Amino acid sequence: MNTDFASIITIGDELLIGQVVDTNSAWMAQELNKIGISIKHRIAVGDVWDDIWYALDEESKQAKIIFITGGLGPTSDDITKPLLCKYFDGKLKIDEDTLAHVTNIFLDVLKRPMIDLNLKQAEVPDTCTVLRNDKGTAPGMMFEKNGKIFISLPGVPHEMKWIMSNVVLPMLPSKVKTTNIEHRTLLTAGIGESFLAELVKEEEIALPPQIKLAYLPNSGMVRLRLTAIGDNKEMLSKQINLYFNAFKIKVKDYLVIDEDLPMHSLIGRLLKDRGQTVSTAESCTGGYIAHLITSIPGASAYFKGSVVSYDNSIKTSVLDVPESTLETFGAVSEETVILMAKNVREIMQTDFSIAVSGIMGPDGGTVEKPVGKVWIAVANNKEISTKSFEFRYNRERNIELTAINALNMLRIAICG
Amino acid sequence: MNTDFASIITIGDELLIGQVVDTNSAWMAQELNKIGISIKHRIAVGDVWDDIWYALDEESKQAKIIFITGGLGPTSDDITKPLLCKYFDGKLKIDEDTLAHVTNIFLDVLKRPMIDLNLKQAEVPDTCTVLRNDKGTAPGMMFEKNGKIFISLPGVPHEMKWIMSNVVLPMLPSKVKTTNIEHRTLLTAGIGESFLAELVKEEEIALPPQIKLAYLPNSGMVRLRLTAIGDNKEMLSKQINLYFNAFKIKVKDYLVIDEDLPMHSLIGRLLKDRGQTVSTAESCTGGYIAHLITSIPGASAYFKGSVVSYDNSIKTSVLDVPESTLETFGAVSEETVILMAKNVREIMQTDFSIAVSGIMGPDGGTVEKPVGKVWIAVANNKEISTKSFEFRYNRERNIELTAINALNMLRIAICG
Repeated sequence: MNTDFASIITIGDELLIGQVVDTNSAWMAQELNKIGISIKHRIAVGDVWDDIWYALDEESKQAKIIFITGGLGPTSDDITKPLLCKYFDGKLKIDEDTLAHVTNIFLDVLKRPMIDLNLKQAEVPDTCTVLRNDKGTAPGMMFEKNGKIFISLPGVPHEMKWIMSNVVLPMLPSKVKTTNIEHRTLLTAGIGESFLAELVKEEEIALPPQIKLAYLPNSGMVRLRLTAIGDNKEMLSKQINLYFNAFKIKVKDYLVIDEDLPMHSLIGRLLKDRGQTVSTAESCTGGYIAHLITSIPGASAYFKGSVVSYDNSIKTSVLDVPESTLETFGAVSEETVILMAKNVREIMQTDFSIAVSGIMGPDGGTVEKPVGKVWIAVANNKEISTKSFEFRYNRERNIELTAINALNMLRIAICG
Repeated sequence: MNTDFASIITIGDELLIGQVVDTNSAWMAQELNKIGISIKHRIAVGDVWDDIWYALDEESKQAKIIFITGGLGPTSDDITKPLLCKYFDGKLKIDEDTLAHVTNIFLDVLKRPMIDLNLKQAEVPDTCTVLRNDKGTAPGMMFEKNGKIFISLPGVPHEMKWIMSNVVLPMLPSKVKTTNIEHRTLLTAGIGESFLAELVKEEEIALPPQIKLAYLPNSGMVRLRLTAIGDNKEMLSKQINLYFNAFKIKVKDYLVIDEDLPMHSLIGRLLKDRGQTVSTAESCTGGYIAHLITSIPGASAYFKGSVVSYDNSIKTSVLDVPESTLETFGAVSEETVILMAKNVREIMQTDFSIAVSGIMGPDGGTVEKPVGKVWIAVANNKEISTKSFEFRYNRERNIELTAINALNMLRIAICG
């Protein structure tokens, strides 16, 4: 198997001082994998001439195609364009199509006069092929040198994505050797990474060298991933499916789903397939569970709403939890979440409901109910199941784990 | 100025196929900056022996201290430990402290018998200094070679963070030359990047070479950042503050805050300082605004709750929006959000309230109300301000922009 690798260089001081988390690379990697291009390397450098230049030299030693994102803005801290112009022995010239596009954005869409800095956006090195950017003023650029391809894209995520999807990805297969990359993922719950590895020991030993196995533990669950790379797509699919099924059978007692799907997408699919609905009553998660559910397109088919009863007065006034329950058992108690789940289901008239109440920290913990203590209830028209947890992480992770576990309890309730 | 640079190598195929977004590096960079260590480079490589080896060689040419995260799990896909053992000419040996710690986790905390794979976690190369990991079974490791320092940490974020905060960061200043790194950030709204650059043209020209300026446009706002690096802390602070104030005065009409603070943290601070409270009534954002507000520790002091009225029936039944309003004007209308804001404020008895209703896509748009169309209302006891937007991005970004703009309207209402 002889295939071309890609490399991604992201540019910007903000990436090196931690002001911004790079989400572009993950998206690009996924899309490139789909058309059979593997990433060898990802590297982030600052807005520093020598560092960018060195990165271009280094990455082109290792990869056939080098993606460069960021540093294309109109301001003086953005040096990618003049650098690429020099690196590829070009001269800056006005690109007429880009100029028309930029002018149109300012005069017709923003209805603002342009300034010189905006016009500069239409300048490109004369050694590049312009990659149209319908979503912004900075065009993408492609250069070819010594048999290598360099693609420069803006760092603004929706602009980068538009150019990738509409210009770059359709063009690449004619430019580079691609292969087939197949991933298969099993999501498991209720078993640790090392015990899972022990369980599938024989299946792992049986794997041929072209199929790689990886474990990804997260939020108390473990994803097990098989990856196969090869030229014959049909044979590759057959082979990976064969091994994947063997793993699937072995982990069946812990299996959540045999796809790389987040829990809230899975919940959405299960409810939609069954024509059922859900609502949530959230205290400590503050609307995060509702947010996860509604981040999926089409959620209105199965999600009706939520009461975020952060303050105890809302538990009483909106969710009809008696003050006496809160006084006797506390807001973080099985009794309270049972009533929250029962009542929100009735108020919103849904098939299922989720209720959570807990202490996410850093403050608010007591000896009896420490930070991380959570009660979760899931109700349907027949029964209410409850469970308590003690997560003891930081606030962000406690919220995340509460949401994931609540959704997992809902999944179990839906599947019976 | 003569200072030591750091480099971060993150290891894992999941980073190169886009299955996981790397949030570790940003956090590490922030913490290292605080103690005066700059990151020169960040690089991600797969679970591939030669690629990791090559990265260690390369990064140690450029940096004094090399951080390595990931690949320390107990399963066979994790090869960082054997590789580091070989790279630093060591032999694996049992570390007694780690063994006691791992044994304790299994027998006392998890109450499960250990298997051989778990014991393997206590093995470390005899050429390393063990870095204690109280949060997990994989210890961190430090190696020194040819005057360079290599620090290997687990990829699980809360384990990495614990070792960094408790072991690595306290130790580093005695091992490497640090300097002072000062960042100052202005958050502006209502002005584009190029117009902002035009506005501060003179201030930019006046900057001395040791102060760098950067523009970070995001969600319709622009952050303007000054960064100064130097050995004399006091002089550095004075100098950067001087220039920072000049920028601040110039952008005053667009200034949101003169700190690098997300909008929801700022809202929290404003409300807390004033002893005021807020509630939200969310349709299209599905609880995301409530989630942002409650992601801040101590939010219970000023946030009482939210009604996520995703389905129209909830707008009527819980938020008392008359069916006739929904029928006449539609759910996405000024009339509807006014009533949602007014009523949720009364139901929750808060000083302020936010209401949003819109079409986030990809489906549900019409010619009259396209995807991205949003109405936002913010109420206090005297008035209700409203605004409509047409974002026209993808679902995720439309939700994000709706939330940010709603919080910005709340900010304006709070500040009068």
